[in-house]
Amino acid sequence: MDTIITNGTIVNATGACRADVAIKDGLIAAVGNGLTAGDARMIDAGGAYVLPGGVDAHTHLDMPFGGTVSCDDFRTGTRAAAVGGTTAIVDFAIQAKGDTLADTLAAWKAKAEGRAVIDYGLHVAVTDLTGDALAEMPAMVDAGVSSFKFFMAYKDALMVDDATLLRALKKARECGALISVHAENGDVIDVLVKEHLAAGKSHPRYHAVTRPPEAEGEATGRAIFLAGLAGAPIYIVHLSCKDALDQVRAARDRGAPVYAETCPQYLALSVERYDEPGFQGAKYVCSPPLRDRANWAELWAGLSAGDLHVVATDHCPFNFEGQKDLGLGDFSKIPNGAPGIEHRLLLLHTLGVAGGRISLAKLVDLFSTTPAKLFGMFPQKGVVAPGSDADLVIFDPEARGTITAAAQTQNIDYTPYEGMDVKGAVRTVLQRGRIVAQDGAFVGADAAGKYLHRKPFAAV
Amino acid sequence: MDTIITNGTIVNATGACRADVAIKDGLIAAVGNGLTAGDARMIDAGGAYVLPGGVDAHTHLDMPFGGTVSCDDFRTGTRAAAVGGTTAIVDFAIQAKGDTLADTLAAWKAKAEGRAVIDYGLHVAVTDLTGDALAEMPAMVDAGVSSFKFFMAYKDALMVDDATLLRALKKARECGALISVHAENGDVIDVLVKEHLAAGKSHPRYHAVTRPPEAEGEATGRAIFLAGLAGAPIYIVHLSCKDALDQVRAARDRGAPVYAETCPQYLALSVERYDEPGFQGAKYVCSPPLRDRANWAELWAGLSAGDLHVVATDHCPFNFEGQKDLGLGDFSKIPNGAPGIEHRLLLLHTLGVAGGRISLAKLVDLFSTTPAKLFGMFPQKGVVAPGSDADLVIFDPEARGTITAAAQTQNIDYTPYEGMDVKGAVRTVLQRGRIVAQDGAFVGADAAGKYLHRKPFAAV
Amino acid sequence: MDTIITNGTIVNATGACRADVAIKDGLIAAVGNGLTAGDARMIDAGGAYVLPGGVDAHTHLDMPFGGTVSCDDFRTGTRAAAVGGTTAIVDFAIQAKGDTLADTLAAWKAKAEGRAVIDYGLHVAVTDLTGDALAEMPAMVDAGVSSFKFFMAYKDALMVDDATLLRALKKARECGALISVHAENGDVIDVLVKEHLAAGKSHPRYHAVTRPPEAEGEATGRAIFLAGLAGAPIYIVHLSCKDALDQVRAARDRGAPVYAETCPQYLALSVERYDEPGFQGAKYVCSPPLRDRANWAELWAGLSAGDLHVVATDHCPFNFEGQKDLGLGDFSKIPNGAPGIEHRLLLLHTLGVAGGRISLAKLVDLFSTTPAKLFGMFPQKGVVAPGSDADLVIFDPEARGTITAAAQTQNIDYTPYEGMDVKGAVRTVLQRGRIVAQDGAFVGADAAGKYLHRKPFAAV
Amino acid sequence: MDTIITNGTIVNATGACRADVAIKDGLIAAVGNGLTAGDARMIDAGGAYVLPGGVDAHTHLDMPFGGTVSCDDFRTGTRAAAVGGTTAIVDFAIQAKGDTLADTLAAWKAKAEGRAVIDYGLHVAVTDLTGDALAEMPAMVDAGVSSFKFFMAYKDALMVDDATLLRALKKARECGALISVHAENGDVIDVLVKEHLAAGKSHPRYHAVTRPPEAEGEATGRAIFLAGLAGAPIYIVHLSCKDALDQVRAARDRGAPVYAETCPQYLALSVERYDEPGFQGAKYVCSPPLRDRANWAELWAGLSAGDLHVVATDHCPFNFEGQKDLGLGDFSKIPNGAPGIEHRLLLLHTLGVAGGRISLAKLVDLFSTTPAKLFGMFPQKGVVAPGSDADLVIFDPEARGTITAAAQTQNIDYTPYEGMDVKGAVRTVLQRGRIVAQDGAFVGADAAGKYLHRKPFAAV
Repeated sequence: MDTIITNGTIVNATGACRADVAIKDGLIAAVGNGLTAGDARMIDAGGAYVLPGGVDAHTHLDMPFGGTVSCDDFRTGTRAAAVGGTTAIVDFAIQAKGDTLADTLAAWKAKAEGRAVIDYGLHVAVTDLTGDALAEMPAMVDAGVSSFKFFMAYKDALMVDDATLLRALKKARECGALISVHAENGDVIDVLVKEHLAAGKSHPRYHAVTRPPEAEGEATGRAIFLAGLAGAPIYIVHLSCKDALDQVRAARDRGAPVYAETCPQYLALSVERYDEPGFQGAKYVCSPPLRDRANWAELWAGLSAGDLHVVATDHCPFNFEGQKDLGLGDFSKIPNGAPGIEHRLLLLHTLGVAGGRISLAKLVDLFSTTPAKLFGMFPQKGVVAPGSDADLVIFDPEARGTITAAAQTQNIDYTPYEGMDVKGAVRTVLQRGRIVAQDGAFVGADAAGKYLHRKPFAAV
Repeated sequence: MDTIITNGTIVNATGACRADVAIKDGLIAAVGNGLTAGDARMIDAGGAYVLPGGVDAHTHLDMPFGGTVSCDDFRTGTRAAAVGGTTAIVDFAIQAKGDTLADTLAAWKAKAEGRAVIDYGLHVAVTDLTGDALAEMPAMVDAGVSSFKFFMAYKDALMVDDATLLRALKKARECGALISVHAENGDVIDVLVKEHLAAGKSHPRYHAVTRPPEAEGEATGRAIFLAGLAGAPIYIVHLSCKDALDQVRAARDRGAPVYAETCPQYLALSVERYDEPGFQGAKYVCSPPLRDRANWAELWAGLSAGDLHVVATDHCPFNFEGQKDLGLGDFSKIPNGAPGIEHRLLLLHTLGVAGGRISLAKLVDLFSTTPAKLFGMFPQKGVVAPGSDADLVIFDPEARGTITAAAQTQNIDYTPYEGMDVKGAVRTVLQRGRIVAQDGAFVGADAAGKYLHRKPFAAV
Repeated sequence: MDTIITNGTIVNATGACRADVAIKDGLIAAVGNGLTAGDARMIDAGGAYVLPGGVDAHTHLDMPFGGTVSCDDFRTGTRAAAVGGTTAIVDFAIQAKGDTLADTLAAWKAKAEGRAVIDYGLHVAVTDLTGDALAEMPAMVDAGVSSFKFFMAYKDALMVDDATLLRALKKARECGALISVHAENGDVIDVLVKEHLAAGKSHPRYHAVTRPPEAEGEATGRAIFLAGLAGAPIYIVHLSCKDALDQVRAARDRGAPVYAETCPQYLALSVERYDEPGFQGAKYVCSPPLRDRANWAELWAGLSAGDLHVVATDHCPFNFEGQKDLGLGDFSKIPNGAPGIEHRLLLLHTLGVAGGRISLAKLVDLFSTTPAKLFGMFPQKGVVAPGSDADLVIFDPEARGTITAAAQTQNIDYTPYEGMDVKGAVRTVLQRGRIVAQDGAFVGADAAGKYLHRKPFAAV
Repeated sequence: MDTIITNGTIVNATGACRADVAIKDGLIAAVGNGLTAGDARMIDAGGAYVLPGGVDAHTHLDMPFGGTVSCDDFRTGTRAAAVGGTTAIVDFAIQAKGDTLADTLAAWKAKAEGRAVIDYGLHVAVTDLTGDALAEMPAMVDAGVSSFKFFMAYKDALMVDDATLLRALKKARECGALISVHAENGDVIDVLVKEHLAAGKSHPRYHAVTRPPEAEGEATGRAIFLAGLAGAPIYIVHLSCKDALDQVRAARDRGAPVYAETCPQYLALSVERYDEPGFQGAKYVCSPPLRDRANWAELWAGLSAGDLHVVATDHCPFNFEGQKDLGLGDFSKIPNGAPGIEHRLLLLHTLGVAGGRISLAKLVDLFSTTPAKLFGMFPQKGVVAPGSDADLVIFDPEARGTITAAAQTQNIDYTPYEGMDVKGAVRTVLQRGRIVAQDGAFVGADAAGKYLHRKPFAAV
């Protein structure tokens, strides 16, 4: 054995047990009591949990958007992820108009290689079907990309029509891929945005007003309808509100293979943030927007009851100074996105487990196990079990701290959670058996992350 | 180590891994690759799954009903359970009118002690609140009985009114108990039974006609309503149909702590069985009755989506000759119940996993993990993990067989699954590290089962 | 012609037209333009509506309750009705334990004969089936009683069990009767009342707390379920809240013959009233209780969309001094009921039509036409058309007034609507061609009301 | 008086009465008993009903479609309407690309003037917003066009996107118009049609396969969502199936001003028709297509419960020989539409009233009253009352007949109802007091129809 973690409480999605974890050659060799090996490094996890490393299925590193680029690249972004207990991400490779999917994948691999410090997979976001993008999908699956994203929002930019989405769903069913959608009605948003701007309503708060929850609910229902026609599973990204959740609930009640993700910002923040003084509201401009707080209880209920399956971050950071301010005087020009890759576990533990809303086992499920399964990485990732990658988080549930931009590893000049008191702390993070983070500092090697060749979709 | 199981695929509710299992002092000591110990017995599980032993949360052994007694006692019934891969049961201690709950528990322990060959817990079914039964509930929880059952059916016999059920739910919330209900509208059934008998309709088929699915749906909704008023969780036993499932779905969609169980007979059999020649239909007289087969897909969807949580057997055997025939000429006098304790795993594997309806991990969840959790036995039971009881099933998924009464261990003269071809076979069963069944034969010790002192309820 | 009403706008449930109404022998002879007849009395309805007289399908005159008697008898109550534009009522003849239905009908006819000044029909409320009450139902229908009421509330007093209700519904289907129910779960209320009183919570506000809307919703759903099993129509009296309305909506959406009534108190008043100083809250103690005001919009939506069919008053007056005070120190002893027979039209016009919530034609439908149809009195009552009784209300929509106890005709010492400003005024009321009320004063003959022999139920 | 109709039973949407109808100057002067006038023409309606003339809110006369023109023009089509008891239509003026709305209205008026024999209004169907169509809407309302139609189907032809529909709904709310939609998801249909044609599936039956009911349900829900955002009422034309009806039900249950129409073909015919020998299935190619017959009961329930408001014909006839055969070898080229303007009353009476599914009053409501109200023609049309146009149908409910193409007035070589036995017969039809049809023959004057300047929308 190379390493043995002792005295901790191993927590998997099924439940917890008191046992040691033995690691050899980057894999978990055994879990059990009294595991020993002469020369193994011993790590004392006394008083702490030993969790499977987090899987963040929704990140946007080094992403062009509205004339700028998200301010974490694969190096800074994955360092922040590691510090926060996430050991694998799936980032979005976004097709530029005219590019093939193969071009797209290659471009994003080039961004990640030599930079990422944790393992990474890639979704491909399809925005242009004028070439032969659908025909390329099976080759992408063969290349380890078993999930594709389509946008129902961002009219005249990323948005596809229902015909495209239906054809893609049919193709995905054939080739073992999972389609995910950004579900907001882009037509409606376009009308409302133009109407408000024309009326001189340019403040960041109108970002939320012009993207009403009904428009997310409608698009979610429509996406599910198209998936049903195609006989394909579907995954709803960054679900933010009851309107959309009700569509997922109804579909799942009739047995449809519909999956959904929410994000910490929709569980922790609410629409009042847009009214912060001056232009501060721009910090919270992400899509879907923050909602009114009645949605919080709905989302927690959905997570608890199994109608929401994943908590990812949609990490898409833009500096308040120099980036967000592109939208001064016109909320529609504020780059959409907010940071969060570093704080997912702390927020879930604080609000969810310490808040009495979900069990610890459910946290593990949402944070690591189910995203690993849905995106073809299980059991390599997502579980503390023999044979799995030794991606482990030693988490102290009793520690206390406060989130601040000053203390964060993310390469951005603010955090939407500034000043929030949190319960628990990430003590040690291992990736494939090597310690990469310790007490809030990245201590791993540069560029050690590997591309995750993901398996085809299988129902969870 | 005492025993090491090698070469198998361990399957937990979270997923599978290839690893050995080491057992010491009746507990699982470790799971890992290449576990060795000089003198340990080695069991080769090559080509097989290693599952946590089954937990059957719904059995009726040695139970008086309508002037007779169910024909498996704790010895014969638990031997059959063991042969079929079940290593723990929770039987129902049913209050006789005038008895205290303490009396009731004592009476059922007396039935089980010295007879049960696997571990057993006891629910108490409360039928008479004229004494101080509610006041006794906390003491029962202290005695390891953290679940109570109430009947909304069997008017003028076991049925309680809504006031009783509401008071019990309030008390249960206070003392950490889970209330389960037999949810059928007893008033409606009583009217219909009398109406049909008065019209000369006495054949077993009228058992189903007089217990319509709507009456189960209504009572299920009413039970959930009462639980909501009380702020208490609730568990619906032997849910058989879409009408009832829809009530559970609606409740769970709004975040209510509602749990439900179905049984193999509702997944494998349907209402046409009552029309078998002569009086043969009596074999299938259980309550709720078998339903039309459109319900099968609904129930599987409910299991898959997480709206049904447990598959238990409601094992309640009465011989066709000498017991079921009490109802010759009057279907209402047929003792209610059917056998199944022995075949739960085979049926779930054949119909569910081999049938492509649920994953293997989900089978483990329904068969063992979630019942163990809901009824206060986890992680002692329900998982293959260090520290848990070494209750294990070595299951060969490739074997083929046929269910027959001639070959069964259950002490009854028929099986409702006679002639059904099944996929898979239970090779070896261990309880607390000792082999108790091998290739369909009970090979364990007499009376080795222990009473399970169950923990208070905690939400799953 | 005896009388011609000129210059008014006739309003029926279908719509309005400008025309005269000619009356002969107590019936409407013609509606048309320029009707003339040499010696007919001419009534000028200039600027006013001519409506069909109101039909109040829910009154409790001279009714014993909790040791006292409602303080309007058939003389005072029907005088108040007439003044307010109601020309027919259907009162509840309530079976005393041990009485036959024939006894019950006879007793109530005796109360009404020689007293009622407008026409009256009688429902029979069945509370005791120990005799042969169900067998009597066809004879009652023959006697003009085509509707029966059952209580799901008032445990140990009026409440019947589900078996009774189911049998009654089956019988009603056979004999052409409509079953109406008071839908609240009496068991739940009984538990809550005892619990609150035991905790010293005796103030009138606990009347509402112990009768939660969920208990009305549940009972409404259960009643509809029983009607569905019986294949019978059902009518829900005094529906007060969204919980119950949602059950009606769901039933009607699947095509079930379910009808429901609400009352002005649930449209105009809300639960805060119970917190009026001292014991004043007792004035509003009726069952179901007043609800929170979020229900108002739901009820108006139900009326507008056709899911609620009738607005009746549930007029059941008890004086604040000398009657309501029976419940000083114990809210459960406050006689249940509130007055309203006099103000139904004014409230509907003010809140509904002037408030922009319903059309004038819909007012007529709810106030007169549909109750006349559902209870077997159409087209004798409920419409301004040739051949119908000349029961007419000349209503001035532009008048303004204020409701006060001082000005009312009802024989009670308060009104729950004290001080409410209203739009419109009842100018003249005719029954069978004779003027019975003029500008707020009763001007008709004593004891001129006739028993309405109502026809069997026919679907609306 | 000019004319008096005696001995009939007048039926309005509220109910029936026995009375005479007196007509003067084309208007109803009075209804009453014993009406007389020296020199008036007397029409004996003994044994018959006197109904308000039918209002058909959905016709396509003289309409270009797919390279041909519907084979009834305003002369032949309105003659057929009159023979069948319909005395007013609202036809669709369909904007040609590049035309203004004013152009469109003028073009359709030119088609109707000098040809229509009954009164006609016009909806404008908006297909091109590149000009300033939205800005023209108020002027259209002023010109008597208070309803506009948009297509969510017919991609790359008539279909508009959600942005257009939302803007139109907002404009409609401002100017008092009602937006109606053809609700099918045109994108989905386009994908399916191309897919089937590419697979060689060209038979008429694939018309139905490629327009699944789910695609109608989805579009209906989306239209309602857009109307909700706009705060505008909406009207769903030719609703054909449960999927769409469920969306309407849900909207109405929450109080939304949503209205819907179905057509006789969806109540009388079903999808098996497409399998008639050879190319005969083309006769039934209309959009939405005929559905499976489980939808019949749903639609009748919707009509009965008030969730469907109008039965119109969508009369859009194309000859089987010479027009339908444009689609030989390619179902997508079959001109969409079926005849029916002549048989609406007979079908509604036969299936609805004689079939026990709706009351006679409800028939009048669906056939005449509610369409007149929704489209701004009430009380001029839609009711038998003083002051209304004397548009009357004398209908003999006891007559028996059979629908055949040979006997029809419609100018088309087939009828989808060929050989259907019907109950009842239209005896006499009057428009504005003049007899225009007698016993199946048109006997009126040429070109006597007048343009109906319709009022702005008011909620029903």
